[in-house]
Amino acid sequence: MEIAYDGSYFSGWQIQPAAATVQGVMEDCLGRITKTKTALRVAGRTDAGVHAIGQVASFKTVSGMTGKQFKAALNSILPESIRIIDVYEVPPEFHPRYSAKKRWYRYIISTAPVLMPFFFHYVLWENRHVDESLVNEYCRRIVGLHDFRSFATLGPGEVPYREVYECECKRKNEFVLCDITANAFLRKMIRALIGTFLELERKRTDPDQVTEILKMHDRSTAGATASPAGLYLVKVFY
Amino acid sequence: MEIAYDGSYFSGWQIQPAAATVQGVMEDCLGRITKTKTALRVAGRTDAGVHAIGQVASFKTVSGMTGKQFKAALNSILPESIRIIDVYEVPPEFHPRYSAKKRWYRYIISTAPVLMPFFFHYVLWENRHVDESLVNEYCRRIVGLHDFRSFATLGPGEVPYREVYECECKRKNEFVLCDITANAFLRKMIRALIGTFLELERKRTDPDQVTEILKMHDRSTAGATASPAGLYLVKVFY
Repeated sequence: MEIAYDGSYFSGWQIQPAAATVQGVMEDCLGRITKTKTALRVAGRTDAGVHAIGQVASFKTVSGMTGKQFKAALNSILPESIRIIDVYEVPPEFHPRYSAKKRWYRYIISTAPVLMPFFFHYVLWENRHVDESLVNEYCRRIVGLHDFRSFATLGPGEVPYREVYECECKRKNEFVLCDITANAFLRKMIRALIGTFLELERKRTDPDQVTEILKMHDRSTAGATASPAGLYLVKVFY
Repeated sequence: MEIAYDGSYFSGWQIQPAAATVQGVMEDCLGRITKTKTALRVAGRTDAGVHAIGQVASFKTVSGMTGKQFKAALNSILPESIRIIDVYEVPPEFHPRYSAKKRWYRYIISTAPVLMPFFFHYVLWENRHVDESLVNEYCRRIVGLHDFRSFATLGPGEVPYREVYECECKRKNEFVLCDITANAFLRKMIRALIGTFLELERKRTDPDQVTEILKMHDRSTAGATASPAGLYLVKVFY
């Protein structure tokens, strides 16, 4: 399934007792459709407040329903904050997380003098001019295979290496859009990168500092974790 | 004051006991700033769920604060769903409603096959192709001075005449945007017009039917009232 959701309605993807999560709501709806407990595997466990346009999740079913029928059935009972874009059959060995070759995320910053009320769940508001060309210089420094532990919350025993394929920042009217693709991301990695880049940009720090922070292998050398509101999982490539 | 708000957070503009209203929240915040009960006059009392980009409201104050100071003070304590765009002094005879010469509203319809989860509070979703050029023909039929009681909820003794200056419908990608300006609008008039236009368009009714409905002076001859989610008060002209 390709799924879009508004993360501001959920405590993240992953199921939790006593919290509205995308996985919890979706497994509940799938269970009502298939009349059997149906577990979901997912490409990326987005955090609370993070949005998705092209999340990918899969499930096993003995139901004879087609993908088109699952899409219609799910969209008719899911809340409007979760929409199924597409459903299709995949080989049994497919795993949305381990089969993924590349993930594309976008982070949106608004530099409007007053943030329109419609946007506060959907962008990070920086109440100042942001020099996107300087941020873009920082972006270039993280492209490649690196140990990203300076920019992430690592789980026990987790390997800190990730390969960033593209990282680019551009302006569109009052918005600054940062696109980043990688084989995979560490937890809160993009938000740590964006939070750090904005702190460095504010002080007009030399881009070499990004390379220095990467080398430190120490989360405390980087900046704050930026708001989840501006972050979108755009597409997963297989 | 020029004000933008996300109508999905409020039971409309007008103050009500035990409901979150834009007027209620704003008068409360103004009272905290001026340390005195401060009443607001408004250009248009938008209904529950209707949004504003350029609502206009005014208040009297003996405070020595400048418009810029009021804007900053209000934006610092108002919820993010209400934003003050501008505040300036006006002559004492100014009335946001009675001094207004023209109002501009926009109605947004999405014809996307699946409505993105970010949009459900912000557009009307029509899950089909909408022929915007036919809707535009309907739009032309209401331009001018007319008795609009077929398209409105009239208050007791209310005059049903309004002059529509412009009414135009255009497509932008998967969205159909309908812009309408008039000296003033009757209650629920735009939503009744849009609801009717969509019903007529679905049956590919001849545009003359709009003229016929106008002449009937009977609300039951028109279509349903469209969702408030797609409606925006864009600007008030003085």
